[in-house]
Amino acid sequence: MKNSFVIKGNLCQTIHAGELDLHPNAYAVCVNGVSKGVFETLPKEYASLPLYDYGDALIFPGMVDLHVHAPQYAFRGMCMDLELKDWLNRYTFPQEEKYENLEYAQKAYGMFVEALKKGATTRASVFATRHRYATELLMQLLEESGLVSYVGKVNMDREASEALTEESAEISAYNTFGWINATKDKFKNTYPILTPRFIPCCTDKLMEELRQIQMAYGIPVQSHLSESKGEIDFVKFLRPDNPFYGDSYNEYDLFGKNDDIGTDVKTVMAHCVWSTDEEVELMRKNGVFVAHCPASNMNLTSGIAPIRKYIDLGLNIGLGSDVAGGHSDSIFRAITDAIQVSKMYFRMVNEADKPLVFSEAFYLATKGGGAFFGKVGSFEEGYEFDAVVMDDSVLPHPQSLNLAERMERAVYLGLDEKKVTAKFVAGRKII
Amino acid sequence: MKNSFVIKGNLCQTIHAGELDLHPNAYAVCVNGVSKGVFETLPKEYASLPLYDYGDALIFPGMVDLHVHAPQYAFRGMCMDLELKDWLNRYTFPQEEKYENLEYAQKAYGMFVEALKKGATTRASVFATRHRYATELLMQLLEESGLVSYVGKVNMDREASEALTEESAEISAYNTFGWINATKDKFKNTYPILTPRFIPCCTDKLMEELRQIQMAYGIPVQSHLSESKGEIDFVKFLRPDNPFYGDSYNEYDLFGKNDDIGTDVKTVMAHCVWSTDEEVELMRKNGVFVAHCPASNMNLTSGIAPIRKYIDLGLNIGLGSDVAGGHSDSIFRAITDAIQVSKMYFRMVNEADKPLVFSEAFYLATKGGGAFFGKVGSFEEGYEFDAVVMDDSVLPHPQSLNLAERMERAVYLGLDEKKVTAKFVAGRKII
Repeated sequence: MKNSFVIKGNLCQTIHAGELDLHPNAYAVCVNGVSKGVFETLPKEYASLPLYDYGDALIFPGMVDLHVHAPQYAFRGMCMDLELKDWLNRYTFPQEEKYENLEYAQKAYGMFVEALKKGATTRASVFATRHRYATELLMQLLEESGLVSYVGKVNMDREASEALTEESAEISAYNTFGWINATKDKFKNTYPILTPRFIPCCTDKLMEELRQIQMAYGIPVQSHLSESKGEIDFVKFLRPDNPFYGDSYNEYDLFGKNDDIGTDVKTVMAHCVWSTDEEVELMRKNGVFVAHCPASNMNLTSGIAPIRKYIDLGLNIGLGSDVAGGHSDSIFRAITDAIQVSKMYFRMVNEADKPLVFSEAFYLATKGGGAFFGKVGSFEEGYEFDAVVMDDSVLPHPQSLNLAERMERAVYLGLDEKKVTAKFVAGRKII
Repeated sequence: MKNSFVIKGNLCQTIHAGELDLHPNAYAVCVNGVSKGVFETLPKEYASLPLYDYGDALIFPGMVDLHVHAPQYAFRGMCMDLELKDWLNRYTFPQEEKYENLEYAQKAYGMFVEALKKGATTRASVFATRHRYATELLMQLLEESGLVSYVGKVNMDREASEALTEESAEISAYNTFGWINATKDKFKNTYPILTPRFIPCCTDKLMEELRQIQMAYGIPVQSHLSESKGEIDFVKFLRPDNPFYGDSYNEYDLFGKNDDIGTDVKTVMAHCVWSTDEEVELMRKNGVFVAHCPASNMNLTSGIAPIRKYIDLGLNIGLGSDVAGGHSDSIFRAITDAIQVSKMYFRMVNEADKPLVFSEAFYLATKGGGAFFGKVGSFEEGYEFDAVVMDDSVLPHPQSLNLAERMERAVYLGLDEKKVTAKFVAGRKII
């Protein structure tokens, strides 16, 4: 049987948000790329499968990055003194223009994919740029990496630099058709996702085109929503008839489930820092995923998303690195950032919204975002087998630690950037 | 001449807060451990000095950590779901008790010093534990590392676990006398600093003893101040006659300059998250240093210190890692954390207080905290020569970068934890 094996080590996961599920020195079984569960003693029926014994290593489910801009990896950690609009215009757009050049794209995307591959992330929902061929190249590189990803050629026909703005809604749609047709059946693990940059960059006409494209191909959607106050004011100005920002996507049936017309468009919206109650209610009703990107929301001075409220309301939530609004591609870092900003929100904004605890944020990074990809994010039976194996002996300590301590410490101290020794994606060993 | 040489590379510093001072491919000259300044062309008078040519490397002034707990390095990144009081009682105090055992202390402090030595920090103001002999051992290890540090045996005679609480104010004072006498002239680069843990852990009687000890030896003082709301309420309960928390230190002449009695006690107080206007005014008047510890203030849900206000008022401010309230010993990380929390303060609390920009936070980490050690934190003429040399080629990028971009990126991406290739402290090459 292909992609069938047993791994042994210290298994750490969160089956339920807020609760660590720890199995020291245990076995996880993968058959045909799918988990058969965790066992303290290996059942006889699996005794003939190949065994990877990772000794005293830590084994986590793979991390899911629900929002990352591949072209921005090249300039992460730079120009961080600006807010969203200035950051886009003065730095990001000029940088993204470079991906017109496929040679540059090959070099830059190669670095991005290499970083993603060697870290703890196994799944990602990725923005490319508006350039069709560079996007296809990125998809090829991601496919070769073994990771599973959604990748979007960006649509944008206004409010950017001339070189980055598509000539018209029709040209944008035309290139999108070409890109989807070229990629939708080409790869095993890399899928196109419809990617209007955000309402400020998309004319009504383009949004209408995207509605038609979505209906024709049935592919999922990713975009940005209610990230910063200035952006929201601008959307209000551009689309005065929509009662709230998210309604501008919903009007074009690009916002999750729509019971009126019987569609269910898998949708992830990054940020949702300043979503109104109406917007949140529509997201809940439509099953729209929130990609919570705490580092980016700090760096661009956007604010703090009220994640406790979203959890209590039962929204679908995952974490995003949002490179390069976020300066790190590590989802371990996103876990600790999510905890930290929730603590600040609790202390400085609203003491009714309790901070996230470690096990909740870990859940968001695995099963939370994993749900966007299906049954992903744990070693429970029936889940796709994504695992990351790490050697935490590189983090010295003078005393004995229990497994819960080792798990938390690995995340806080960024072990994903230090010592990933093996990685499996849907049962395929990619490191 | 001892400790006299020239180094060549890309010199990056902040002479003034808010302004980068960049010198690509330039020379910094050190004579007798003291900087002679930065030169684009090497002056003839220094041509005979040994030259370290670091090629295309980045060279920064050394980082200053104004607040770090050496015994807590052993458990950094663990048990981060608790607030200050519970974190101290349930985790920190039991961990600190272990330093009664010198064998454990040797092992644990060895790891701490090793980490500090190989990172970008050149100076630190360090808390040990209440144990005299483990503190002396820590000082010995720090001395051997070549770093410059103040180290404090902690005083605490109430409100901790039995094993960690000193038997009485007299015993605490007795051990403090012994420790100071044993260490004050023993080391070249490691100095004792008086360290009442904080008011909740120090009886009035102990504070009076410490006043006497400070007067007798004239050594500086470090402690904690106005970190969390619960702590402040407790201090109010313990000392109802002091109009604000800081006045409890001032009453015992352990709070900076005191014009009334003509003393000037060099003092650094960690946190100052919730200082009242009166407290801030007294700190300003007395020249008390603030050790701003943004990561710790997030992790322990303490809050966000209003650093913009403190800068505008002209307070002395440096950065602290506050390991293990902060989970990283990197001052690069403290720089970016300080920027991020200032952005959240601006956005979520008070839009009158503008966020810190990169060059301001870098200044706090170098000249800001450096002032606690004298003329430290830049390559200006007359400054003690602390430098850290880093190879940023380990951070791949596809495009050419200017020096300002490289400097910012190195800090955001934590180059101090990746590739420090050389380090100088007061002109001594320690790596």
